[in-house]
Amino acid sequence: MNYQQILEEITAETSALKNTGKVATYIPELGKVDPGKFGIYLQCTDGKSYATGDSHERFSIQSISKVLSLALVLKLKGNSIWNRIGVEPSGDPFNSLVQLEYEKGIPRNPFINAGALVVADILLTELKNPKEDFLQFVRDVAGDQSINYDEKVAASEMQHKDRNASLTHLMKDFGNINHEVDAVLDFYFHQCSIVMSCKQLAKAFTIFLNYGKYDLSKEAAVLNPMLAKRINALMITCGFYDESGEFAFSIGLPGKSGVGGGIVAVHPRHYSVAVWSPPLNSKGNSERGMRALELLTTKTEQSVF
Amino acid sequence: MNYQQILEEITAETSALKNTGKVATYIPELGKVDPGKFGIYLQCTDGKSYATGDSHERFSIQSISKVLSLALVLKLKGNSIWNRIGVEPSGDPFNSLVQLEYEKGIPRNPFINAGALVVADILLTELKNPKEDFLQFVRDVAGDQSINYDEKVAASEMQHKDRNASLTHLMKDFGNINHEVDAVLDFYFHQCSIVMSCKQLAKAFTIFLNYGKYDLSKEAAVLNPMLAKRINALMITCGFYDESGEFAFSIGLPGKSGVGGGIVAVHPRHYSVAVWSPPLNSKGNSERGMRALELLTTKTEQSVF
Amino acid sequence: MNYQQILEEITAETSALKNTGKVATYIPELGKVDPGKFGIYLQCTDGKSYATGDSHERFSIQSISKVLSLALVLKLKGNSIWNRIGVEPSGDPFNSLVQLEYEKGIPRNPFINAGALVVADILLTELKNPKEDFLQFVRDVAGDQSINYDEKVAASEMQHKDRNASLTHLMKDFGNINHEVDAVLDFYFHQCSIVMSCKQLAKAFTIFLNYGKYDLSKEAAVLNPMLAKRINALMITCGFYDESGEFAFSIGLPGKSGVGGGIVAVHPRHYSVAVWSPPLNSKGNSERGMRALELLTTKTEQSVF
Amino acid sequence: MNYQQILEEITAETSALKNTGKVATYIPELGKVDPGKFGIYLQCTDGKSYATGDSHERFSIQSISKVLSLALVLKLKGNSIWNRIGVEPSGDPFNSLVQLEYEKGIPRNPFINAGALVVADILLTELKNPKEDFLQFVRDVAGDQSINYDEKVAASEMQHKDRNASLTHLMKDFGNINHEVDAVLDFYFHQCSIVMSCKQLAKAFTIFLNYGKYDLSKEAAVLNPMLAKRINALMITCGFYDESGEFAFSIGLPGKSGVGGGIVAVHPRHYSVAVWSPPLNSKGNSERGMRALELLTTKTEQSVF
Repeated sequence: MNYQQILEEITAETSALKNTGKVATYIPELGKVDPGKFGIYLQCTDGKSYATGDSHERFSIQSISKVLSLALVLKLKGNSIWNRIGVEPSGDPFNSLVQLEYEKGIPRNPFINAGALVVADILLTELKNPKEDFLQFVRDVAGDQSINYDEKVAASEMQHKDRNASLTHLMKDFGNINHEVDAVLDFYFHQCSIVMSCKQLAKAFTIFLNYGKYDLSKEAAVLNPMLAKRINALMITCGFYDESGEFAFSIGLPGKSGVGGGIVAVHPRHYSVAVWSPPLNSKGNSERGMRALELLTTKTEQSVF
Repeated sequence: MNYQQILEEITAETSALKNTGKVATYIPELGKVDPGKFGIYLQCTDGKSYATGDSHERFSIQSISKVLSLALVLKLKGNSIWNRIGVEPSGDPFNSLVQLEYEKGIPRNPFINAGALVVADILLTELKNPKEDFLQFVRDVAGDQSINYDEKVAASEMQHKDRNASLTHLMKDFGNINHEVDAVLDFYFHQCSIVMSCKQLAKAFTIFLNYGKYDLSKEAAVLNPMLAKRINALMITCGFYDESGEFAFSIGLPGKSGVGGGIVAVHPRHYSVAVWSPPLNSKGNSERGMRALELLTTKTEQSVF
Repeated sequence: MNYQQILEEITAETSALKNTGKVATYIPELGKVDPGKFGIYLQCTDGKSYATGDSHERFSIQSISKVLSLALVLKLKGNSIWNRIGVEPSGDPFNSLVQLEYEKGIPRNPFINAGALVVADILLTELKNPKEDFLQFVRDVAGDQSINYDEKVAASEMQHKDRNASLTHLMKDFGNINHEVDAVLDFYFHQCSIVMSCKQLAKAFTIFLNYGKYDLSKEAAVLNPMLAKRINALMITCGFYDESGEFAFSIGLPGKSGVGGGIVAVHPRHYSVAVWSPPLNSKGNSERGMRALELLTTKTEQSVF
Repeated sequence: MNYQQILEEITAETSALKNTGKVATYIPELGKVDPGKFGIYLQCTDGKSYATGDSHERFSIQSISKVLSLALVLKLKGNSIWNRIGVEPSGDPFNSLVQLEYEKGIPRNPFINAGALVVADILLTELKNPKEDFLQFVRDVAGDQSINYDEKVAASEMQHKDRNASLTHLMKDFGNINHEVDAVLDFYFHQCSIVMSCKQLAKAFTIFLNYGKYDLSKEAAVLNPMLAKRINALMITCGFYDESGEFAFSIGLPGKSGVGGGIVAVHPRHYSVAVWSPPLNSKGNSERGMRALELLTTKTEQSVF
């Protein structure tokens, strides 16, 4: 498979398409990004990698961080966490309070905000120095010690915390949050503020390849096979807010998007891939990124289905 | 892979488990089945097949028929149907009216009852002799001309039609049903009443293997690759009512269950498999069937993830 | 109190107001009415009456009939009906299925469609010749034997029955409807199709005055005091769909509106009043009718509060 | 009318009834009250008053304070507040987040928690020394300068603030809260912590009698007639959480309850009445208090209907 040529075709074809998306502006820091940025980075299980465009430029990973925090919490606590978080798709916009109330403070899955906030609450208990330790985990799985938080973005999120504060207080009222709401939010907003490039994201997501056995630099698997498989299952059913079915349907890979315009997807036996284009469609996913991944699985004639 | 031995191990191990499930009794005909029945049939892409237990005995396929009616309607109409049905998980019990009302009569996906009723309505328009033609399609994909409707079950469903009649009238009020409500229900209840064995179901679901290119008896693919892939994506995100995430999570294959106790699953490059055990868990899926498939992907160390 | 002068002032003042309402057109027959029609009829407990405009012209009473069917069913069955219907405001648009599903087929109150359909189902059991007997009850309380159904409107409603058929099937599924759905709908649509003038409506609603003791022509009260009081309580909390609070707030009387543009209100110790103006506001209540009644309680400085 | 004899009959008859209610314990301070306490105080418009039992003993007025804060905000700001709060019944348990989300942060009415929190937010803007000024208003309308906050109860509420914090953050996210969440909660919890006797409550609620013209000690009305009328309308449609219809239905008066076991009701041209009995029914209203008021309107044959 000539991946490099395919990536270049995708870049060319998607640049010609008319974009109707909008860069996220709910926090001012995110709105400052250049909407024309675009990059792809594809890391194969054979160790080779391919890239085009701005694939080495860093951006705010936002909700993509939810997969990494889930990986860490599963590594530390295993399946014991599922009494506090579900594994079912939400079928509702990503920040809805409705289902949370009907289900007594148990979030539907770890990729809606409520679920990621519970994961953050568990990590606050499990980690000695939560922010440092989580960052170190991300650096290790990405194989790059220069990765960092964007303190400005984290602070900006904290100033616009009300929706997430409402969710967290509601879950605390149901007994599903153990720490102070502001402590949970501080950790969560830092986690979302991490800046990474497509290259770094694709490298980090190799921990979900080959049943967790793929590792660029180390001998042992980061995740046991069962956990890697489960995270992939969660990504394919719940990774794209109210567009998860559409993503499985048109792209056919497990993946996760963020409002910074990034998407990472995984073809478990073949590759991990990260794409970045800031303008978002009406469901909150990168418009050009979605098209690029659809072209990738169409041109390679590969999907998990 | 020694599939025969694995199936026998699964049969033995699951027979030792304590069952807490209940046979569906909402229509009296379904309640008459022997709860101790159990069978598996696995059909590989290399043409070989493996079986244990009551795998040749026929049972009411119920909601499994929704995959077959979707396959036929996609074959006839292609992706033009998606303006009348969504592709997102429902995140709610399978017969909820709530989401249907919020989304103005457009069902979330073709595997909830409302979605299957819209598929039935389209088939009433597209097929010359709807009941005969649909049955012929099922016979052809299963490669068995003896498959038939169970008129007693269909009649019993019609006597308990109120929930589905409510759904259909609601969608008709929103303009998303074109035929008379009773005509739609008559076709739909017949479709659900089809009796098939695990063997017949596994054979029929080979149309979703190898991008639709697998065919036991014919030269041409029944479905084009894109459609086979899309149906697999829908099965993995929406195939198990409110337990779809759990199924993807613990089993890791596209699949579909029915309240008759049957489950069919597909490992796109390897096999299709059907399992049957009538007692249902609290989410309406076969309890022993779920365990059997979980053991299958654990023992074979194969899943799409 | 010079009611005649007040009614004339109201007529003049409301005719000068700019109307933004729309005549109901969901059934074609209703759409044929002249939007400029306007009348008021006020019947005092001292036997005197006052009127302006088209107060003797008949129109489709529609949902106003729900108060009369409730009065009859309470007269026949007393408070035993409340295990099948609630007495709480719905807090949702008048035809929502959501609450009905959450509350297992028990409608919130007898003035939403679902509740009126349960009342109709009970009357089908209680009355020997349901349509004849109900009409006779209406004629008797209005003191006018010429009142009749409009068969064209009833037939037109039946052709657009889907929303109400959906509600009725849902309640039947929950076991709260005993008769065939079409029989319930036929009775209900006839009930709604009754044509009455403001004069006839005001006379009919005198049964809710003075604790049910007011009666223009007979010695005995039609309703016992408790039942009259309860119907007034239901009208003030539930009589105006999603505008019930607004009506209590701005007008301060028990009342009931219909999509034919009629509103009847009751000042229990003083008068009953009916007003008619076909154009409806966005909540489905007569726009000019609401203004007229607000002026009435403002000018008379009388309300129940 | 021999009110004294009626109150004594009510006391005797309700003491014989078997109570199934439970004292509120969601904050420990409330749970310390003696469940056997019972008192009634009735204040007539002719200046006479009647009482039985523990009518001079003070208790936590809790949600009854919402009527007093609404009265003050309407006195200060008039009807301009209705763009931030609705006037419709909620049709849902009193602390539901669902409707608030669907209606974009505008609470349905000022008597659900969300609505009272918006009223508190407005008072924080309007009052120079919010807690002092509000307390002075309550002292003035009750005619008793000894009324005070219970700081222990207010502090206990703050420790269990999560549900209300969730509501307030959600509304702040929608732009309907202007002050810091904790400042709003501090004012609100103080307001709810006020301790008053039945006597003091009945005196305070005289401002809603006779169109606001009743005043025990002063020449001028506290409220203009329109505002008094509107608050009565709101009490009858929204005063009893999910039991408002039942209260209107069985008692037939505007009123407001609190989880401290108090209920105040108003017969606009005749009297205000306060009753206290701590055990609550399943809807959160005083069980014996509801019975007492039902007996009062039955025995006096007086209600607004």
